[in-house]
Amino acid sequence: MATTIGGYKLGKILIEGKTKQVYDLPEHQGLCLLLSKDRITAGDGVKAHDLQGKAEISNTTNGLVFGILNEAGINTAYVKPCSDNAFIAKKCEMIPIEWVTRRLATGSFLKRNTGVPEGYRFSPPKQETFFKDDANHDPQWSDEQIISAKFNFNGVLIGQDELDIMKRTTVLVFEILEKAWATRNCALIDMKVEFGIDTEGT
Amino acid sequence: MATTIGGYKLGKILIEGKTKQVYDLPEHQGLCLLLSKDRITAGDGVKAHDLQGKAEISNTTNGLVFGILNEAGINTAYVKPCSDNAFIAKKCEMIPIEWVTRRLATGSFLKRNTGVPEGYRFSPPKQETFFKDDANHDPQWSDEQIISAKFNFNGVLIGQDELDIMKRTTVLVFEILEKAWATRNCALIDMKVEFGIDTEGT
Repeated sequence: MATTIGGYKLGKILIEGKTKQVYDLPEHQGLCLLLSKDRITAGDGVKAHDLQGKAEISNTTNGLVFGILNEAGINTAYVKPCSDNAFIAKKCEMIPIEWVTRRLATGSFLKRNTGVPEGYRFSPPKQETFFKDDANHDPQWSDEQIISAKFNFNGVLIGQDELDIMKRTTVLVFEILEKAWATRNCALIDMKVEFGIDTEGT
Repeated sequence: MATTIGGYKLGKILIEGKTKQVYDLPEHQGLCLLLSKDRITAGDGVKAHDLQGKAEISNTTNGLVFGILNEAGINTAYVKPCSDNAFIAKKCEMIPIEWVTRRLATGSFLKRNTGVPEGYRFSPPKQETFFKDDANHDPQWSDEQIISAKFNFNGVLIGQDELDIMKRTTVLVFEILEKAWATRNCALIDMKVEFGIDTEGT
């Protein structure tokens, strides 16, 4: 295992997911390094295998997507690429909520909304929030549940204002990426984002 | 059984509920008569018994509440009282959706939104919609489900615009009645309304 990537000295692994490892950067306070794996997964990790070159493609795509968002003035954790398969990001405490935005109804939405036809178009895009809780299959949460949880990360209490900021940001991110997809003749159907609070409390 | 009430000649019973009977008025096209029963019920009809004088109180209260709404310019089915325990209303085809508005979280909301404390205050009031379907315990429905159902009553298709009108009306009704309750030093906690389309299509 390399102890440096792109000139960055690696610390311990902070967390490891299905497709990425996150390393501490002891010489760079407030930053971390995300190393992509050659792993592809589906069905919440039920299906998984290795695919050579996948890490590099993921890393490149990721850099381009965050580049679009950062240029549009959206504050993201992405800092810069540091190798073919790794990038530098702000170290954040993550809010355990998944923000889903949908332009067209498909998949799990149809199961939860019996009677809505496949491809139903949401205008404005539909927002849904799910509490990240594997044991309970990530239950859908209302605004009131998120506020009642009184999440506090890096000194920031998640209240109505923070919820509003995340809502507006999520839709904005969707609309920016939908336009980016459209220029490549693709439709963005739905999207999931998460938010974290960095060590500066932003 | 009286064949007239308050001078109105009764036709057949159009529908009978737990606490009311609805009579056709063959001499008054587009109108019907709602006769209150001396019956009180709770728990979706599981508990029920007769209470003398209840019909008259219901009828009076009903008249006063609809009087407030009609004065505020809200279009309701209520026309006028016609006896101690009956009133005249427009004959409508009912949209099988219950519109619930809540100022404070209590009861079934808390069961569906684990973690929200009793008495959580919604501002603006929280709106929820339920499809009237006894066999399936009146499931909660999203806007998209209501629109996808393509309800059509007295020639009116319930689409996005009709949904928006019902949403705005429901909150307005709540806010008007909340003020009326407040002048009597009472708090309106939550409320349920339903909408119908009359024979003129309004």
